[in-house]
Amino acid sequence: MEFYEVIRTRRSVRSFKKDSIPKEVLDRVLDASRVAPSGSNRQPWKFILVKDETLKQKMISACDHQKFIADAPLIVVACGQKLSFNRGGYMKEMSMLIDVSIAFTHLILAARAEGLGTCWIGAFNNDEIKKLLQVAEGYEVVAATPLGYPSENVFTEPRGRKKLDEIVSENKF
Amino acid sequence: MEFYEVIRTRRSVRSFKKDSIPKEVLDRVLDASRVAPSGSNRQPWKFILVKDETLKQKMISACDHQKFIADAPLIVVACGQKLSFNRGGYMKEMSMLIDVSIAFTHLILAARAEGLGTCWIGAFNNDEIKKLLQVAEGYEVVAATPLGYPSENVFTEPRGRKKLDEIVSENKF
Repeated sequence: MEFYEVIRTRRSVRSFKKDSIPKEVLDRVLDASRVAPSGSNRQPWKFILVKDETLKQKMISACDHQKFIADAPLIVVACGQKLSFNRGGYMKEMSMLIDVSIAFTHLILAARAEGLGTCWIGAFNNDEIKKLLQVAEGYEVVAATPLGYPSENVFTEPRGRKKLDEIVSENKF
Repeated sequence: MEFYEVIRTRRSVRSFKKDSIPKEVLDRVLDASRVAPSGSNRQPWKFILVKDETLKQKMISACDHQKFIADAPLIVVACGQKLSFNRGGYMKEMSMLIDVSIAFTHLILAARAEGLGTCWIGAFNNDEIKKLLQVAEGYEVVAATPLGYPSENVFTEPRGRKKLDEIVSENKF
């Protein structure tokens, strides 16, 4: 798919078919994250594919009771390793959020290119998911998304964005 | 350009031509960030285009003396608004790093689609840039990149990435 079509028509999808995702499609989507850039090429990310039905059901309560996430054939959970790379002098261990977000954005966009729906989940209980998925010490959950084919055509232009002149300025804020 | 070609051939560029960027090209690149998703659609981002030569030179010392950033016709500085949206229960005000990183990733990829080079700058002095560009209170600098046409063809496959089975697992970490 053409790059800007992917960018323009990516939407948060909250309704999924049960259809499973062919392995070669899933591999392309995951590979898009794999090649993402990161600070000093540290690649401080791990992606857990939650396919098990019992675990998916338990993910619902760990994600603020958003039931639709378990309707997709899988839920991808992105974890980041806390590192001492302190970007900007204020981010401290949180600078890994940037690296993991870059890789996860690649995944979200690649999913759109494959006709797959995603919904970036920001409301979740870190400790609950870490326990549920046996996340290694030193890692935190950064984001999650259901991944599956949308139950209807939802790939339309995004709504409700600020105008360009509200978010861009020259030489000063 | 085809989506996966953008993903596969984006590279950090550290050598630029002086050629300026046509307005319609720059607008397409900025618009790619504009439509990015963010938590509760807050869009907590601002992009400052640093074009002024004196400011560009001052940006060098604010970015860990990386001289090449001032060779590009402009430097884009991404700022994020600190919000109380506390993702995962541990990110606190730092969760805006995720939103700004998503939008900045859109920009980085769109630049590649246009044949423009970028280099995500993670080493910078937040306070120095905020003073230099008169960044509003409540905002922090999240990232910066030079933006311009590369001085040679550098768009090749990325190097030195982990293998897929090192970063992906099923049902548990």
